[in-house]
Amino acid sequence: MRIKVITPLTSEAFEKETREEVVKFASSGTEIHTERIEYGAESIESAYDEALCAPGTIRLAEKAQSEGYDGIVISCMGDPALDAVREKVDIPVVGPARATMLFAADLAHTFSVVTILQNVIVLIEDLAKKLGLIEKMVSVRSVDIPVLELTDKGRLINSLVDESILAIEKDKAHSIVLGCTGMMGIADALKDSLLKKGYNVPVLDPVPIAIRYLEALISLRLSQSKMTYMPVTIKERNIWKRLD
Amino acid sequence: MRIKVITPLTSEAFEKETREEVVKFASSGTEIHTERIEYGAESIESAYDEALCAPGTIRLAEKAQSEGYDGIVISCMGDPALDAVREKVDIPVVGPARATMLFAADLAHTFSVVTILQNVIVLIEDLAKKLGLIEKMVSVRSVDIPVLELTDKGRLINSLVDESILAIEKDKAHSIVLGCTGMMGIADALKDSLLKKGYNVPVLDPVPIAIRYLEALISLRLSQSKMTYMPVTIKERNIWKRLD
Amino acid sequence: MRIKVITPLTSEAFEKETREEVVKFASSGTEIHTERIEYGAESIESAYDEALCAPGTIRLAEKAQSEGYDGIVISCMGDPALDAVREKVDIPVVGPARATMLFAADLAHTFSVVTILQNVIVLIEDLAKKLGLIEKMVSVRSVDIPVLELTDKGRLINSLVDESILAIEKDKAHSIVLGCTGMMGIADALKDSLLKKGYNVPVLDPVPIAIRYLEALISLRLSQSKMTYMPVTIKERNIWKRLD
Amino acid sequence: MRIKVITPLTSEAFEKETREEVVKFASSGTEIHTERIEYGAESIESAYDEALCAPGTIRLAEKAQSEGYDGIVISCMGDPALDAVREKVDIPVVGPARATMLFAADLAHTFSVVTILQNVIVLIEDLAKKLGLIEKMVSVRSVDIPVLELTDKGRLINSLVDESILAIEKDKAHSIVLGCTGMMGIADALKDSLLKKGYNVPVLDPVPIAIRYLEALISLRLSQSKMTYMPVTIKERNIWKRLD
Amino acid sequence: MRIKVITPLTSEAFEKETREEVVKFASSGTEIHTERIEYGAESIESAYDEALCAPGTIRLAEKAQSEGYDGIVISCMGDPALDAVREKVDIPVVGPARATMLFAADLAHTFSVVTILQNVIVLIEDLAKKLGLIEKMVSVRSVDIPVLELTDKGRLINSLVDESILAIEKDKAHSIVLGCTGMMGIADALKDSLLKKGYNVPVLDPVPIAIRYLEALISLRLSQSKMTYMPVTIKERNIWKRLD
Amino acid sequence: MRIKVITPLTSEAFEKETREEVVKFASSGTEIHTERIEYGAESIESAYDEALCAPGTIRLAEKAQSEGYDGIVISCMGDPALDAVREKVDIPVVGPARATMLFAADLAHTFSVVTILQNVIVLIEDLAKKLGLIEKMVSVRSVDIPVLELTDKGRLINSLVDESILAIEKDKAHSIVLGCTGMMGIADALKDSLLKKGYNVPVLDPVPIAIRYLEALISLRLSQSKMTYMPVTIKERNIWKRLD
Repeated sequence: MRIKVITPLTSEAFEKETREEVVKFASSGTEIHTERIEYGAESIESAYDEALCAPGTIRLAEKAQSEGYDGIVISCMGDPALDAVREKVDIPVVGPARATMLFAADLAHTFSVVTILQNVIVLIEDLAKKLGLIEKMVSVRSVDIPVLELTDKGRLINSLVDESILAIEKDKAHSIVLGCTGMMGIADALKDSLLKKGYNVPVLDPVPIAIRYLEALISLRLSQSKMTYMPVTIKERNIWKRLD
Repeated sequence: MRIKVITPLTSEAFEKETREEVVKFASSGTEIHTERIEYGAESIESAYDEALCAPGTIRLAEKAQSEGYDGIVISCMGDPALDAVREKVDIPVVGPARATMLFAADLAHTFSVVTILQNVIVLIEDLAKKLGLIEKMVSVRSVDIPVLELTDKGRLINSLVDESILAIEKDKAHSIVLGCTGMMGIADALKDSLLKKGYNVPVLDPVPIAIRYLEALISLRLSQSKMTYMPVTIKERNIWKRLD
Repeated sequence: MRIKVITPLTSEAFEKETREEVVKFASSGTEIHTERIEYGAESIESAYDEALCAPGTIRLAEKAQSEGYDGIVISCMGDPALDAVREKVDIPVVGPARATMLFAADLAHTFSVVTILQNVIVLIEDLAKKLGLIEKMVSVRSVDIPVLELTDKGRLINSLVDESILAIEKDKAHSIVLGCTGMMGIADALKDSLLKKGYNVPVLDPVPIAIRYLEALISLRLSQSKMTYMPVTIKERNIWKRLD
Repeated sequence: MRIKVITPLTSEAFEKETREEVVKFASSGTEIHTERIEYGAESIESAYDEALCAPGTIRLAEKAQSEGYDGIVISCMGDPALDAVREKVDIPVVGPARATMLFAADLAHTFSVVTILQNVIVLIEDLAKKLGLIEKMVSVRSVDIPVLELTDKGRLINSLVDESILAIEKDKAHSIVLGCTGMMGIADALKDSLLKKGYNVPVLDPVPIAIRYLEALISLRLSQSKMTYMPVTIKERNIWKRLD
Repeated sequence: MRIKVITPLTSEAFEKETREEVVKFASSGTEIHTERIEYGAESIESAYDEALCAPGTIRLAEKAQSEGYDGIVISCMGDPALDAVREKVDIPVVGPARATMLFAADLAHTFSVVTILQNVIVLIEDLAKKLGLIEKMVSVRSVDIPVLELTDKGRLINSLVDESILAIEKDKAHSIVLGCTGMMGIADALKDSLLKKGYNVPVLDPVPIAIRYLEALISLRLSQSKMTYMPVTIKERNIWKRLD
Repeated sequence: MRIKVITPLTSEAFEKETREEVVKFASSGTEIHTERIEYGAESIESAYDEALCAPGTIRLAEKAQSEGYDGIVISCMGDPALDAVREKVDIPVVGPARATMLFAADLAHTFSVVTILQNVIVLIEDLAKKLGLIEKMVSVRSVDIPVLELTDKGRLINSLVDESILAIEKDKAHSIVLGCTGMMGIADALKDSLLKKGYNVPVLDPVPIAIRYLEALISLRLSQSKMTYMPVTIKERNIWKRLD
């Protein structure tokens, strides 16, 4: 099976890191390609950024379907443009936030998301409301590090440990969801640090989960409901004249 | 006070009708201007359309603020780009869906939205979940008429009466929200028809409500919380190179 | 348009302060009169007080309608007798608690109410449950100052700042609702104090909001649903023999 | 133990029927007295009626406590003045609506209330929201018979059977709550009629349940929480000058 | 009336204490017998223990019904095997957790459960979700004492006071539910200690409440709904060959 | 990887069918073995059956872990003994009901479960409440065919089509969940029949989903949270003396 992982932002470095990471998670027999959008914003840290990255993400998704990919992951914890893309294509499209929250809801009584910045807390809470899981999400906490500074893994892991412990002790979280797809390759270290301090909880890493979940959908021939994500009507949409 | 009503779609006819309508609702002393986006989609009937109309809507909102307008209404029941615009500007920005649902929640125990097409029912339900009012919204029904055919007012009013009665009788709605800003100038006729059939319920017309609500916000010097809609960071967003 | 603001308690000083305050908020073209009830309790700080002030409030509302007023505000954050009054009259009746919570729900992801005494916290939480907004109301806090001592504005503002900061920091409130209509003329000072400490959140003042919201309803010819607030049947109600 | 059953309305016939009925339900060893209010409304069929009957109900409750009663039942499914009375006295006070909904919530997955008139449906739904049981209450239906016509038991039982079957078949109710304390002495007949038609569901009769529940509270020395129903402060409440 | 109290675990000491305790609570005229299961676990501190104690509990319940008992209490705050037993017998079966939460929901705006071990917090929260009362249950706290060590009443009472004060101050609990049926004979001491420290809240003791509630059900001829707890079909269930 | 599928009931035919079915779904590289419990009930159609099948299921799960399996599926839509098993073992344990509801929640705005008998509707609704997804589950419908008669695939498919259409048309379901693991090998036929009638919705088959989801968990090294499913304490549990 062939999977397209769309990086819904324009940073080359971020896409490169994603590319190196995702190949580790795929099953043998799965071919994964990553691609980043051409126009949009350098990173996604607001509803404003999401809005600007949506057209490019839609175009890449249409392209992936026409090239015969079996499914798509939109690699960002805001699940940007997910509804629009699911309307536009028939192959299954996975948003890491939804997928990871669902895994967390099964594995634990409660979960907490630890994300990058205060700015995206509301976005993530709204995703959980829409998905119906707000009752199980006991908090969204942030490490206060912008996406493009996530490369300092030492600083990141320390902050993640601190916030995760607060999530467990104060908010009664029974599992931890990494709240940004840029927090790559760090879940095991976080899990181990927590375990050493006596906290035996699952740490859920969104990109690997999204890929494995998409593989499951593809092999089960499942896709998004066309009653929820109805096909779009044909009419003039002149924005493409400028963007294409 | 000066209000900008943004038509977040590219149809000239729709904007013209909006312009003729809105002047009727404003208080004396309020100056209202309408403006439609330059690039996007002809009408909004899907999450896909909303995504494509968002960049143009954002640009018009920024322009309105820089031109000294006191507040903005985004004239569409999907409240497209509302979060992004509220992040980007400081003047109050009103989405007709949110405003109208809130008025309905105050005036009645329950409300039903009667909208244009099946396609937007999920969008409207998700708005109510986000706003926290899903428990009071007993149904979203549709008349199955596309936006650009709403000009046939006779057909529209008949369908609205039928669906409103179903909403009242079957779904136990105590008030009716018009579910598309294109259903202009029709609320009184619907209210009268329902009254003749024995149903004395408020009929809530989104554009006039949005304008009066915005006037109230402006006169009270209230605007969206900057803790919810945090100011956006500065970074490269190359989509504007193509769009501006 | 002519608006009657009912002070649903018997304190002359409270009504006088209300009268001086409300004229500041009305639009030009709006005529506002205040009137206090003749029999009831001196202030409202319990369900018991609300029950005792209800008959007088109802009578004033009936009188206002018969005198041709276009709408009514019941000036107390417990919205006392609101349901009964809305059943009894046809002109729109606004409760400041409901109106202010709805404005807060639109402008921010979450809100906190800061009220006078512990005693009314449950009343306010129950109003939010009934209105459907309990999920967005993250807390109700109190400054522990009885209504009739609210005239010490210095003590009041200090306590309000302290509790508002706790609401923001601990309860994650994104906006602050003043929880008593006796906290008049203080919203701007509170907003400024919070801003100086780095908290840029809306501060919602219930009486001005109620008046502006009522003006909007009147101009839109909207009133409470008669399916929710059904007209009362005719029968013997001998309490009026004693009270009238 | 001595229990006071307050009839919170002024109809002598209603009180007489209550008196004859309640003696059947009490345990041996329980002394029950009924008393009706002196001033208020003849029956309770609206929030307006509830407001008018509240002062009289409060006075009777205070009298009952001073006369050494061990507990109070307010005999109406609107639980009128319950919060105020619970603030004012220390002995346990039971509202039949709350008590019966709680029994229903334990005995069945879902319940439906079948009440007298459309007019009180919203009141009953609001009680369930406040109590936290709205999710289990699948519907409130009405037989459309005013309180004072409930004496025609034949008409009542037929309508109750019809509405109960609709509640079970359409609303998926697993138990039936009688929605007016005036529906006395009829629960067994309704239960039998339903059983003959193949519906084996509990039928919950509010007055007997309220009495037995109050007996349990008294014997367990339990009463309402004084943190929820805080003692009222002392101040001028001039309404008593007219009413006492 | 005759009541069977089933101790759904195998500890002889626990049953003995239960037996001595329950006779104090029953009304005159009620005959109470206790009986413990023969095979299962020594105490219930996990879903695993509950599963192992279920078959024995079911058998004792069937026996009680065949011996003519009028009702059953399953004496454990996990309400183990309650659904199965309610399906299998027709006489009313009471689970102390459900009954006590319902009493607490009536008497107070909010309640907190103080239980034995961290291990059972999730079980108790899931019971509240199923019952529909999770919104009113503001917390479940634990004293961290295993069931079989509850005999040290001094240690128990001190821990209960500490956790109850945290429940009131931090979680805003307005009443306290004892979270283990092994915490017998201690409610009054806890209530007094809290009162001395200024907290006037109901303390709800599950076993006495369950017995009084069951007496009420029996005298009202109420039992669990057979639409919720449908009679079980006849078929091979070979586990009884080993257990009987 | 090696997966154990436990048939938590004693029917040999059911296990045989499961065995033949599950091999079709596993990925290459996954070794799947099925095993049925030795003592319990022939099929699971009530809480009573679930209770009787729990001990056997627990024992098989412990055995699977000791034999080095990487994960377990409990093949029944009641997820019987899931909590107990998750406490007792460390390898991931999947309940088909939870897993399938989560997939449905992601793929569609709403879902409906179509199950075998009325008797299990409450069980399934309670699972959804516990999982936090009750808002998205718009109905549970039944085809009224006992588990052991599910072998008549013609009758089954016709009933499933009828109930699924009612779920879509009346309950507004956007996806269909097969509500019994005995409905094997039928999802594709149901999906096709619905598509021919114009309903393009996902049909979710619990056993294949559970297997693929478990494979994902194993490959991601994720398992249930040990804060939710805490390890059980050591003590006497004499039931094993009879059962082992």
